Amino acid sequence: MEFRTVAILGLGLMGGSLGYALSRLSKPPHIVGFAHRPEVRARARKLGIVDEIHDSPEAAVRGADLVIMCTPVGIFESLIKACADNLSDGCVVTDVGSTKRSVVAMGERLLTGSSCFVGSHPMAGSEKRGLDFARPDLYENALVIVTPTAQTNPTSLARVEAFWTSLTCRIHRVDPVEHDRLLAYVSHLPHLLAASLVSVQPEGSVALAAGGFGDMTRIASGDAVVWRDIFLDNRDMLKASVEKLKKDLDNVTAALDAGDSDRVLKYLAGVAGRKSTYPSFRPPII
Amino acid sequence: MEFRTVAILGLGLMGGSLGYALSRLSKPPHIVGFAHRPEVRARARKLGIVDEIHDSPEAAVRGADLVIMCTPVGIFESLIKACADNLSDGCVVTDVGSTKRSVVAMGERLLTGSSCFVGSHPMAGSEKRGLDFARPDLYENALVIVTPTAQTNPTSLARVEAFWTSLTCRIHRVDPVEHDRLLAYVSHLPHLLAASLVSVQPEGSVALAAGGFGDMTRIASGDAVVWRDIFLDNRDMLKASVEKLKKDLDNVTAALDAGDSDRVLKYLAGVAGRKSTYPSFRPPII
Repeated sequence: MEFRTVAILGLGLMGGSLGYALSRLSKPPHIVGFAHRPEVRARARKLGIVDEIHDSPEAAVRGADLVIMCTPVGIFESLIKACADNLSDGCVVTDVGSTKRSVVAMGERLLTGSSCFVGSHPMAGSEKRGLDFARPDLYENALVIVTPTAQTNPTSLARVEAFWTSLTCRIHRVDPVEHDRLLAYVSHLPHLLAASLVSVQPEGSVALAAGGFGDMTRIASGDAVVWRDIFLDNRDMLKASVEKLKKDLDNVTAALDAGDSDRVLKYLAGVAGRKSTYPSFRPPII
Repeated sequence: MEFRTVAILGLGLMGGSLGYALSRLSKPPHIVGFAHRPEVRARARKLGIVDEIHDSPEAAVRGADLVIMCTPVGIFESLIKACADNLSDGCVVTDVGSTKRSVVAMGERLLTGSSCFVGSHPMAGSEKRGLDFARPDLYENALVIVTPTAQTNPTSLARVEAFWTSLTCRIHRVDPVEHDRLLAYVSHLPHLLAASLVSVQPEGSVALAAGGFGDMTRIASGDAVVWRDIFLDNRDMLKASVEKLKKDLDNVTAALDAGDSDRVLKYLAGVAGRKSTYPSFRPPII
């Protein structure tokens, strides 16, 4: 383990699971947690996933050489502002947020001393919310997207990547802008579609549903605050992906209106062909 | 088992699995199959899922008291036309098609003698295609939507329902028009969205995907011919569901454009709330 003292800010599903995973390492770091709600602090203590727990980020980061923000992304700025003055010399700050442009820009803007920011996005999660659903294997073999920029300190980048690797994660480096563009298509748009599919169901339809519908709506029960923050933060790229999808749907309905059986078949066969080249995805942890 | 001789027209995933399930009953009927392709007939014989196999529907239905159409819906009309003159007195014809308005109307129009049509739609399936993926448990505990009309012979309806029940299926009766309207939302639209989600992916996005994306695109590899037929047959209702979805997406992107955090949160929390009332769906058989 690259770091001696790790401060986890936010002990929900992501932060709690991180505490679990870290505490089970053969040589675990000293794990310090911050949680706003007293009942979450009590529960974290009881589960033994932190060595120390605090009710303020300022207190939690004191002495840490790695700080990981695990709250909804909408809170990151206030978190960094609250604890910037208390960060140790050379402290590295990272996060598990699902958007990266604004997060990385903000981290680089606010951390101007010897501490520095490296953006991380572990592709791990669950539609379940909160510490009660935290689990030691959430990060196991997960892909972690790390988003360095020209400003990123190479040593800090290497240390953050080693941190994730020590948790069995695989690393993929992507520019923050490219991250947000690609994640709009592969994560944010799918989430919005799952939500919208639930939203448009008429009375009586769900009683007739089977496994396919279950799959297509599973992620619609994700944490509303987490996803509100992601959607708002990446709204321009999400909107572009929605426009592209609407255009694609219009093409299909136009072919259907025209009774153009060949065009519909070509579309569906093309999609099935592309789908067959996909890797098998890490199964969702439920 | 209500029927002595069952003819299965089409031995793909659905028809093959039906042969499997029927042949494993404690008192199986005589099972007759029809498959167009010689290699499918050879395979069906080898698997022992039919007692008799024919290369024409006319030959397969001779002597059957139940005929089940298990091909893509686009072929149903030509199937019935081909075998109508060879149906036994009192023979009941049903199907496993995913659309019901046109299928039931066509069945009722073409079967005018003592044979009669009852529409069935088992909510069972897989994104895998063909006899090689047929399995004896595909119909196990599945919901079968049966779509009687004012014209449906009550005795035939009861016999078809008993047939499905003998395979451990649960029955849900719905009017054919209502069936197609509800299925557009709960099955056809989700399928189109899965396809469209694959269709719009930019270069490089899928390498970053995780389980959620895997869920949202699983059904996109369904049989292109089967789904072309379903989309074309139910195009008006599918299109209405697409329009409703587009309007819903527009509402969300408008709220995002306006930075209306509360409205986005209310939408997502509302969706998660509705989702939490859903039953757990029969897991997909893969």
